Amino acid sequence: MTETTQATTAAQIVLGSNQYGKAEVRLVKVTRDTARHQLEDLSVTSQLHGDFEAAHTEGDNAHVVATDTQKNTIYAFARDGVGSPEAFLLRLERHFTGGFEWVSGGRWAAEQYFWNRISDHDHAFAKDKSEIRTAVLVSEGGRQHLVSGISGLTVLKSTGSEFHSFPRDRYTTLAETTDRILATDVTAKWRYAPDTDLDALDFNALYASARTLLLDAFANTHSLALQQTMFEMGKAVIAAHPEIAEVRLSLPNNHHFLVDLAPFGLDNPNEVFFAADRPYGLIEAAVLREGVVADSPVWNTVGGFC
Amino acid sequence: MTETTQATTAAQIVLGSNQYGKAEVRLVKVTRDTARHQLEDLSVTSQLHGDFEAAHTEGDNAHVVATDTQKNTIYAFARDGVGSPEAFLLRLERHFTGGFEWVSGGRWAAEQYFWNRISDHDHAFAKDKSEIRTAVLVSEGGRQHLVSGISGLTVLKSTGSEFHSFPRDRYTTLAETTDRILATDVTAKWRYAPDTDLDALDFNALYASARTLLLDAFANTHSLALQQTMFEMGKAVIAAHPEIAEVRLSLPNNHHFLVDLAPFGLDNPNEVFFAADRPYGLIEAAVLREGVVADSPVWNTVGGFC
Amino acid sequence: MTETTQATTAAQIVLGSNQYGKAEVRLVKVTRDTARHQLEDLSVTSQLHGDFEAAHTEGDNAHVVATDTQKNTIYAFARDGVGSPEAFLLRLERHFTGGFEWVSGGRWAAEQYFWNRISDHDHAFAKDKSEIRTAVLVSEGGRQHLVSGISGLTVLKSTGSEFHSFPRDRYTTLAETTDRILATDVTAKWRYAPDTDLDALDFNALYASARTLLLDAFANTHSLALQQTMFEMGKAVIAAHPEIAEVRLSLPNNHHFLVDLAPFGLDNPNEVFFAADRPYGLIEAAVLREGVVADSPVWNTVGGFC
Amino acid sequence: MTETTQATTAAQIVLGSNQYGKAEVRLVKVTRDTARHQLEDLSVTSQLHGDFEAAHTEGDNAHVVATDTQKNTIYAFARDGVGSPEAFLLRLERHFTGGFEWVSGGRWAAEQYFWNRISDHDHAFAKDKSEIRTAVLVSEGGRQHLVSGISGLTVLKSTGSEFHSFPRDRYTTLAETTDRILATDVTAKWRYAPDTDLDALDFNALYASARTLLLDAFANTHSLALQQTMFEMGKAVIAAHPEIAEVRLSLPNNHHFLVDLAPFGLDNPNEVFFAADRPYGLIEAAVLREGVVADSPVWNTVGGFC
Repeated sequence: MTETTQATTAAQIVLGSNQYGKAEVRLVKVTRDTARHQLEDLSVTSQLHGDFEAAHTEGDNAHVVATDTQKNTIYAFARDGVGSPEAFLLRLERHFTGGFEWVSGGRWAAEQYFWNRISDHDHAFAKDKSEIRTAVLVSEGGRQHLVSGISGLTVLKSTGSEFHSFPRDRYTTLAETTDRILATDVTAKWRYAPDTDLDALDFNALYASARTLLLDAFANTHSLALQQTMFEMGKAVIAAHPEIAEVRLSLPNNHHFLVDLAPFGLDNPNEVFFAADRPYGLIEAAVLREGVVADSPVWNTVGGFC
Repeated sequence: MTETTQATTAAQIVLGSNQYGKAEVRLVKVTRDTARHQLEDLSVTSQLHGDFEAAHTEGDNAHVVATDTQKNTIYAFARDGVGSPEAFLLRLERHFTGGFEWVSGGRWAAEQYFWNRISDHDHAFAKDKSEIRTAVLVSEGGRQHLVSGISGLTVLKSTGSEFHSFPRDRYTTLAETTDRILATDVTAKWRYAPDTDLDALDFNALYASARTLLLDAFANTHSLALQQTMFEMGKAVIAAHPEIAEVRLSLPNNHHFLVDLAPFGLDNPNEVFFAADRPYGLIEAAVLREGVVADSPVWNTVGGFC
Repeated sequence: MTETTQATTAAQIVLGSNQYGKAEVRLVKVTRDTARHQLEDLSVTSQLHGDFEAAHTEGDNAHVVATDTQKNTIYAFARDGVGSPEAFLLRLERHFTGGFEWVSGGRWAAEQYFWNRISDHDHAFAKDKSEIRTAVLVSEGGRQHLVSGISGLTVLKSTGSEFHSFPRDRYTTLAETTDRILATDVTAKWRYAPDTDLDALDFNALYASARTLLLDAFANTHSLALQQTMFEMGKAVIAAHPEIAEVRLSLPNNHHFLVDLAPFGLDNPNEVFFAADRPYGLIEAAVLREGVVADSPVWNTVGGFC
Repeated sequence: MTETTQATTAAQIVLGSNQYGKAEVRLVKVTRDTARHQLEDLSVTSQLHGDFEAAHTEGDNAHVVATDTQKNTIYAFARDGVGSPEAFLLRLERHFTGGFEWVSGGRWAAEQYFWNRISDHDHAFAKDKSEIRTAVLVSEGGRQHLVSGISGLTVLKSTGSEFHSFPRDRYTTLAETTDRILATDVTAKWRYAPDTDLDALDFNALYASARTLLLDAFANTHSLALQQTMFEMGKAVIAAHPEIAEVRLSLPNNHHFLVDLAPFGLDNPNEVFFAADRPYGLIEAAVLREGVVADSPVWNTVGGFC
């Protein structure tokens, strides 16, 4: 490691944007004020932004709030309850940006996992693995950028989906179809309008509503392209919730190929399918309330479309 | 590769038990006799037993029913419907053992994935990922050994679980507790009694019943050890179903550790937990109807306890 | 849960075989007697067999050596070094079967992960993820049944593989080929002869030898069927090592399909392939030294062919 | 779905940025001009940007170059060889942006997997799973933004790592240390300077060099914080390669906790560790050549730091 002989010396190389913290803190909170327990199950990530240059360039940790400390803070805050992933992240953001003068912002994220009661039991639960609730909060310059979401929600229509009238070039072999299976794993993220009073929102109710709107739009749209279905899904969420400025969706097209049974003397009127793993289509878009500023720093840290 | 110089020559090395076929054939069957579609989603594996020695020792494929042919057969048979994983495997078994004189038996297995209708829609579904239904059929010497099961069913009790009065040696540091979280991912497999008329069983009803019995036994057993809860779970299934001879369970103990909040001036009366990934306890047993022969060739191919 | 009304009462339901312990104890041992550190990285599982009936049927834990105690024992024993997965498991077996009169045997298993030095550095390493070394020890009635193995070793031949002359029935559509890609993920397990003095074996040297023999047999066998290649692989290991009685192999056939480029005016002389995920062939067999007893209780707990 | 009754009508909701294509096209290319075959193994993703509004808002597919066509194009182009992931993506970009007037740009990405020859064999290979090579190309407004990278490279130092002198607040319990294990999975992405002649670069040589520089910087930096090690890693790559403007790294801190053996009467001088899965530290930063514009649209689609 003798960079000095290189064309560029170390002095000409600088630190850019950076963040650090603790990821995937597995937190299970049992609220047991009564015999009927409540369960909250999350994976929480905390990362700080601010003046951490000396740690990078000199190994000077005077500003480095330990990632272990961030983990401890998450568990300590959970003693008062979680409430919703979004509300919990907002509490963490206020603590860290308010408590250390060199912390100017950060990124906090959570996944929430769902449990249903077993036969309406007071303290026995079965995990519902069908979807994951997500939240990401980025704080910069005193502004909070909040995105809620859902991931891993796998849906399928066994009819009501067409795909045709697409352009054909020398590499096109796909047949047109007026009846195919349409299947995808929904990842949707909705961003709250910048001037929203986030503390006034009922995030749990919003999640339930967005989930239903996404599912119903998927089910009820007669699809000419997954792009069209996707746009209708985003539109439904924005139309119903004035506090939501933008929805981004990332939808794989989980191909189900009709099996050719003719060699065995059988027809196959859209009944027997091979569900392929890879490759898959990948259809992604932002759907926006008109006039909204499309850009937000939160998207950079989420992945543009995923 | 000049084995001839070795102490043992190739002539002294022989083929033992063997099986081959196609694994994880992804099959989605849509039944669309009416506008209200039915969906069956499976991963099917077919493997043959029999006289395949020449393929191994000489590369002579005269007996090797191609794995591709086995895959084709699965899709062709699905044209007539699936019905239940078990019934479908029994059909495959009859075809392959009846159709090729050198095929003496085999192993057929399936996983089934569940879908729920979206808002009672006729042809739109959301996948229920909370559990997987399993079936394994081993056929040997004209006898069918069938095991049905469930896997990936994650359950948790937030109280009603104790663990104490265990022996202590020089390596024991664990504290006794009268109130802990008990959590596990249920893998259960139930074997049908050898003389059962398998064609007369309603496997879908049996699955639904076994699932409910396992869940309720987990929820309603005040647990002194996961071993005790596991035994009650197996017992419940056997007690309710005379056609079931044995249940085998493999239950990880998914540890939830109480977080020590005392350094932060907080108590923690069983409210805030760290859900650990590894290591985990692993508790496994067979529960048997008295007098039943415990041994069955099907277990060898399933993994004794997994 | 009122089993008393069932046809079978609880008294008629009994505990069968069972085992319990701690799984996937992640152990990293640094040997630093000199400046040149040695690294051993394992995941260790310990499960006990014996008289544990009361724990299951009554929740009486008097015999239940806590899984936490088993974990502690693993870490304490590692203070003296690991040496080899097999030697470490043998030490655990002696401790547990010798230390508790009601423990009659058990199952101990390990995975070992490999690291290479970075630029021959004394204490900096990069993980070699290309394969995992495995070991399983089952102890019953004072006898030790030991299996060593390798898993996840992915290999491919771009030519030198044929598949033809197989039987054709009404479901056969596969074309014959004299030149195809042959690819698989090697899982191999070799069992030591029952009367072997296990303490006298150099397990690390045996692993290195078996690995090389398996790879070379795969590479050097002109393949007429994966079955044939598999048999040659097992044969090579047994032929070279008198202490090994049996090798079991489980080999997926990772299909690589030639892409049809004709629609684009291009030929494809075995150059461009689609590597499929599922389904895959699954080819499994035991290869035995003649005269060896094929059956061993260790296989039941490994999965017959895993 | 009657959005018309909502506060916002559909007319006020618009399509934002979007992309679509085929993901994870598994491509294996065998170059067999001589008996000594060459193997290239990739997963390729192609997504187009441009005027696709009608597909979203009206289901009009006149502009939708089918994802199946994109897949076919990938396979057809592979007939001429791959060369390097970067060169292959550049070819795809030119084809798609040049071939369809409504396609204004896109995103192309690849993973490459490595294989080593078995005993220097001409056509038998074993997969090296220790790392994955990555490349992402975003084309916008006629400009190409290219990032190369490595992922999944797991490294560990068994000493030469300290962490102390960090701030302590009421939630801080972590002890300071002057000797710990430092372990991480390296994900690094390096971006080429905007005015680089990409066609003139030897991407394979650059990859090999960057890999070595990252490994050696990790090994040879006496670490006071993972932040410091990370910065040195990025600096080494930029210093050596004038064509590289920026390196972004995302490094989990894979915690190895010293096991307390004192209860068993044993010391533990940094020899026996528990390797934890979660939570983990997560340390991320951009390292830049001074004067370089930090922002590039490629980062949005890669995830800011991952």
